[in-house]
Amino acid sequence: MTYSEFNLIDEFLTDLTVGRDDVVLGIGDDCALLDVAKDRLLAVSMDTLVGGVHFFADADPESLGHKALAVGLSDLAAMGAAPAWATLALTLPDIDKPWLRCFTTGFGRLAARYGVQLIGGDTTRGPLSISVQVHGLVVPGSALRRDGAGVGDGIYVSGTLGDAGLVVRARRGDWLGDVAPLKDRLDRPEPRLTLGRALRGIASAAIDISDGLSSDLGHILRASGVGAAIDLSAIPQSPEVAAVGDWTLPLASGDDYELCFSVPPVRADALMKCLDHVDVEVTRIGEIAVTPGIRWCLPGGGLLDVGKGWEHFS
Amino acid sequence: MTYSEFNLIDEFLTDLTVGRDDVVLGIGDDCALLDVAKDRLLAVSMDTLVGGVHFFADADPESLGHKALAVGLSDLAAMGAAPAWATLALTLPDIDKPWLRCFTTGFGRLAARYGVQLIGGDTTRGPLSISVQVHGLVVPGSALRRDGAGVGDGIYVSGTLGDAGLVVRARRGDWLGDVAPLKDRLDRPEPRLTLGRALRGIASAAIDISDGLSSDLGHILRASGVGAAIDLSAIPQSPEVAAVGDWTLPLASGDDYELCFSVPPVRADALMKCLDHVDVEVTRIGEIAVTPGIRWCLPGGGLLDVGKGWEHFS
Repeated sequence: MTYSEFNLIDEFLTDLTVGRDDVVLGIGDDCALLDVAKDRLLAVSMDTLVGGVHFFADADPESLGHKALAVGLSDLAAMGAAPAWATLALTLPDIDKPWLRCFTTGFGRLAARYGVQLIGGDTTRGPLSISVQVHGLVVPGSALRRDGAGVGDGIYVSGTLGDAGLVVRARRGDWLGDVAPLKDRLDRPEPRLTLGRALRGIASAAIDISDGLSSDLGHILRASGVGAAIDLSAIPQSPEVAAVGDWTLPLASGDDYELCFSVPPVRADALMKCLDHVDVEVTRIGEIAVTPGIRWCLPGGGLLDVGKGWEHFS
Repeated sequence: MTYSEFNLIDEFLTDLTVGRDDVVLGIGDDCALLDVAKDRLLAVSMDTLVGGVHFFADADPESLGHKALAVGLSDLAAMGAAPAWATLALTLPDIDKPWLRCFTTGFGRLAARYGVQLIGGDTTRGPLSISVQVHGLVVPGSALRRDGAGVGDGIYVSGTLGDAGLVVRARRGDWLGDVAPLKDRLDRPEPRLTLGRALRGIASAAIDISDGLSSDLGHILRASGVGAAIDLSAIPQSPEVAAVGDWTLPLASGDDYELCFSVPPVRADALMKCLDHVDVEVTRIGEIAVTPGIRWCLPGGGLLDVGKGWEHFS
């Protein structure tokens, strides 16, 4: 494989996405040049997906293209930012044009839906790996951060939790039930951008759930200096996940890409109202508390003891 | 290796670089939040270095940390941009703390020299790979682009060419001469940021030489719709490279990280003046011409024929 072949890939990516007026110079120079609107802050996030670690070696390339961008857009959603641009560092063991065509189709379609322009990146030879940096815009002071949760705030999550974790379990052969209805939950996560932007001025803190609710809610709690009590009976689960009866799935498996956020009681009505225009269900699962850590309140009373690992509830 | 160990790395990186006033929120939330100065464009570039492809598996980690940032800063230099922020996606096969300490030291020292703050990134498990995105600021209209070279403009390069290529050749066992004086030219390239900024308003086009002069000057020529005549006797070479007597080294080997730029004759005096404050030699090597392509003019007259590959001149 030569450099010139990789230059072909650069050309392959050049017209992948639509143009934006705020891109002064896109792919094809030493740098891209971008005009950040005067009254906006720039929000950036970078994520890497490694073959064999974050996705199966035989993953469908179109879904992979979608997901590589979606995980970054999910971070922008969690900040309440409007997506604008992306850069892509693609490391490939060899040039497989049909694979590339599918990958870029998946990436490009999601980018088009949210008006994201691909403005640069790098294509290199090596073990399959994908790094994407997303760039969004947000009005100063309106960004959703992790450190604003206050005692008494309600805790909410979008969608259902644990679906992607169950699909991973099934693909590893550790679960024999039917997970076909949940396939896209792992392969083509939907960034909750509409919800994130609706929550500006309403949520006191927010995060996207990429490593499991327990871990990611924990980030909010530590950043805010508070704790939480979670009503396990309220955790939203798909029928498939609920049927497994293992708290590990909804609380501690990765790749949910839902939002977890806190809302002060005085803004609970405003939350309900803003959800009218949002394309995903939102569920109240608990409340911010004074005592650090998370109390997982069992449906029948008592607390789930996670000190000995996640327990089955079936 | 668990996620929590990788969180340790994130903490390891958090205080690596100095803080900047324009970073509203750094490492530790879903996104970093950045305040781009009103009268500036944002310049961004992303580069990936893959173990075993872009660097030897046993590369000194401190030098590697330096280089991972330097290749991006070299792109900012080629645009005339002032460096501001960086993100780092680090994929590691395992957690080797002494290695990490050296890597981050090399990265952090170069960042400190140029006032660059590390604002985010991702740490993942997998084959060793490093993607860095650099972010710089440039006054609208003053960025050095590839597409402005005009017929009659002088063509210049900084430093000497082919040094890194010779070190690679020696490390592969294909050259037995002493390359010790050139070691840092491969391992710790110096981004030509001072030169790049001095060239604003003077150079008509610029690029950094990462794939060899022939390839990178070719990018300027194609973007500008022109050609070039290069005086091979003027190509700046270190004594070590000159002694090899192989045009492939100064013209077509990678990793030079010098700047190649064009300057209209009316600004040649301004160029000489601005170089007083620049820390690298600059050499005029030829002139922009009407006919597309590059004519490589041999010292004794006649043209180098690169149609049959790069020829030895010894």
